[in-house]
Amino acid sequence: MSEQLTNEPKVTEALAEFASTLTFDQIPVEARTVARHCLMDMVGVTLAGKSEPLAQMLLAQVEDEGGSPHASLIGETEKTSASQAALYNGATAHALDYDDVLGIFTGHPTVAVMPAVLALAERHGKDGKAVITAFVAGVEVLARIGGMMSKGHYARGWHSTGTIGSIGAAAGCANLLGLDAEATNRAMGIAATQAAGLKSNFGTMSKPLHAGKAAYNGLLAASLAARGFTARENTLDIAQGFGDSMAEGEVNIDRALERIGELFHTQDTLFKYHPACYGVHAPTEAALALRLQDGFDPALVEKIEISVPQNAIGMCDIAEPKTGLEAKFSLAHNVALGLLDKADGSLALYQDETFEVDGVADLRKKAVVHGKPEFASFYSELVVTQKDGKVIKQEFDIGKPMRDLSEQEAKLEKKFRALATPLIGATQTESMVAAISGLENQAGVSALLAESRVA
Amino acid sequence: MSEQLTNEPKVTEALAEFASTLTFDQIPVEARTVARHCLMDMVGVTLAGKSEPLAQMLLAQVEDEGGSPHASLIGETEKTSASQAALYNGATAHALDYDDVLGIFTGHPTVAVMPAVLALAERHGKDGKAVITAFVAGVEVLARIGGMMSKGHYARGWHSTGTIGSIGAAAGCANLLGLDAEATNRAMGIAATQAAGLKSNFGTMSKPLHAGKAAYNGLLAASLAARGFTARENTLDIAQGFGDSMAEGEVNIDRALERIGELFHTQDTLFKYHPACYGVHAPTEAALALRLQDGFDPALVEKIEISVPQNAIGMCDIAEPKTGLEAKFSLAHNVALGLLDKADGSLALYQDETFEVDGVADLRKKAVVHGKPEFASFYSELVVTQKDGKVIKQEFDIGKPMRDLSEQEAKLEKKFRALATPLIGATQTESMVAAISGLENQAGVSALLAESRVA
Repeated sequence: MSEQLTNEPKVTEALAEFASTLTFDQIPVEARTVARHCLMDMVGVTLAGKSEPLAQMLLAQVEDEGGSPHASLIGETEKTSASQAALYNGATAHALDYDDVLGIFTGHPTVAVMPAVLALAERHGKDGKAVITAFVAGVEVLARIGGMMSKGHYARGWHSTGTIGSIGAAAGCANLLGLDAEATNRAMGIAATQAAGLKSNFGTMSKPLHAGKAAYNGLLAASLAARGFTARENTLDIAQGFGDSMAEGEVNIDRALERIGELFHTQDTLFKYHPACYGVHAPTEAALALRLQDGFDPALVEKIEISVPQNAIGMCDIAEPKTGLEAKFSLAHNVALGLLDKADGSLALYQDETFEVDGVADLRKKAVVHGKPEFASFYSELVVTQKDGKVIKQEFDIGKPMRDLSEQEAKLEKKFRALATPLIGATQTESMVAAISGLENQAGVSALLAESRVA
Repeated sequence: MSEQLTNEPKVTEALAEFASTLTFDQIPVEARTVARHCLMDMVGVTLAGKSEPLAQMLLAQVEDEGGSPHASLIGETEKTSASQAALYNGATAHALDYDDVLGIFTGHPTVAVMPAVLALAERHGKDGKAVITAFVAGVEVLARIGGMMSKGHYARGWHSTGTIGSIGAAAGCANLLGLDAEATNRAMGIAATQAAGLKSNFGTMSKPLHAGKAAYNGLLAASLAARGFTARENTLDIAQGFGDSMAEGEVNIDRALERIGELFHTQDTLFKYHPACYGVHAPTEAALALRLQDGFDPALVEKIEISVPQNAIGMCDIAEPKTGLEAKFSLAHNVALGLLDKADGSLALYQDETFEVDGVADLRKKAVVHGKPEFASFYSELVVTQKDGKVIKQEFDIGKPMRDLSEQEAKLEKKFRALATPLIGATQTESMVAAISGLENQAGVSALLAESRVA
């Protein structure tokens, strides 16, 4: 509970007004572009996640339940009902924890919003522009609620992806269905009263389930609101509403309302490029960047100094990985992969049979790791000393969104190809890359999603 | 958050062990009998609730979604998937707020647990004894979690029917599916991480939705647990689990564990016999009882004194109701209905066209209402003075469960007939009364539920 809540309906009303009136033309081109990136990344990580046991259990459950063939299950030929598709796709997209994150939300935005928007878009024959608009509406709403609540909400034990994600998914679906501000406010209320997800489930299959349930809850909420179903309005503001019951300590209402309609958060989405411990991401990116500097030659490397935040020591500093899983937690191994341009995001890099890539073992032996108490959690530095006397330095901060979106697109296409090609082949992979790159011009999403089928 | 939680897994483990091992033979005959009563009452109020707009909206949504024809929608001919049936039946059963309550739970037990158990029983061909056993397992679990958490949990803004109800439904379904204690513990965890329901939605359609979602969540949780799906175990005990994140202030662990397996709470279920304001229930019951006393003659009544808790004044003391809705809030009107033996629980008693029953207007004019600050909230007294000089007194406390279960059964059959006969006719109504009375000997529940279809 929080003393700042004034029982004035200003936050819910403002967000409902925003989500219900947002049009494609109002969205900055950067946010539209990142929305496409989010879709491509989500389809890739969903395909990669579908062999996880939790995805297979959910698929069996969904198949047993059945449903009208309205919406695609990513990677499958069959279709099912919109809500079942949202549930399965959301959970499977989060199965590997390899999907995107958004700082202000303290959670995973795309896996909560996109599966709901996609399923409803298929159900109601909406086009690519409608999908982008609805997705951005949903992400902006969850970002602003996250900005308002997340610190105390998270501390209380809630997983924002499941809780706030349900409301974001509802707002996105409300935009897609063309609900007005009043109905969108109700949809947010119906979602809020279903919103759940306990952080203690991190490390279990129920963490991905939170994403699937957020998508399911939001889709159900908006669909029922469209039929006239009621909830108490202004759930973010009122006594015993979502804000009051699920926040703890301070909330930041100003952040929820900051320059609404002008300031977009969607383009601050951060993507993961390596299916490994998050602690190795920044040094690996530094290695990929260092490799491109003048004079770097992997054959001449004498010493690699890896400086990382202190908390990486004991977390991901295995010097000599013996298994694929250990490779995920080895700074030396991942920096070597980066310097050799092998860190393409594929799962094979961390499987027992395939993790020992040519040349990596020799290179990682030259690495030394330094823990730096003063480093921020997403920052790292590399210093490579070569036999020719050259000393090459590179820093990297993965906490900052990339501002060169063409570069981001290239990196995400590389990741998508690495994940999708082994499962659906090059032809379907390239077909999907092209379709998602041209999402704005797609008349619908069914044909695009059908290309994800695994033979 | 609560300081009493010790991070020792004792509550979750004890409840999972209890729910997973409970057999029909271990259940006291009183609890078995009340389980049957709960089913009869739920089917009746669901039939009565199906014309409510919220039920019609949910039915349209469920029909649009479709599903394998595994489980019955009460009152409908068609079947749908088990989870959709649980969702619809749970919400519709709570549509009129005319279903049962359980004090220790601070909520509505049957609408959370029974729809989930029934749907899974149909899906998996379980018999009547299995349904009773699973239902009692689920209600005992939610009762004990309610006893542990409900005061602070409720104060924080949670609606126990939706939150704790999800875990009770999961425990019931786990018993039905034959899960062991370890899997039941996981099922409770999967349910807890979906558990939701904000009390601020009282008075909106989302309150009944909480019941439907509790049944849905619990069914999904147990079904996934049966497939091996994981959640953090011991969710009631651990840091950032259900107990830690959703309680507030004191919790009562002793109450959760009190004489587990010996003390059953199911038979403490309280039923509502009048689709009217809860404040008129005790005086109406007093009138129905007073009517049976020696010498009472409605034709001789000179004065009726109705003594009620002070909070009834201004809430339900309309002297001369002009509409069906006003009749729900009239102590004089309802006491007159009781004295004339007309208070049979039918909805027609509170509809504009039919609320003025013969003789009631004359009798209610003789009533005087006294507010009593010292009365407990469920207690009332009547004093009738007759023209022959007789003074007849009757008290009634609706907060105490009826210990004469034959009398309770007769009252519930009367209520069921009043609700069901207008919709499904006398033949189907009597067929259902007989089938539910003999639930212990039914080989399944599909045939029984098929009799609920409205032509």
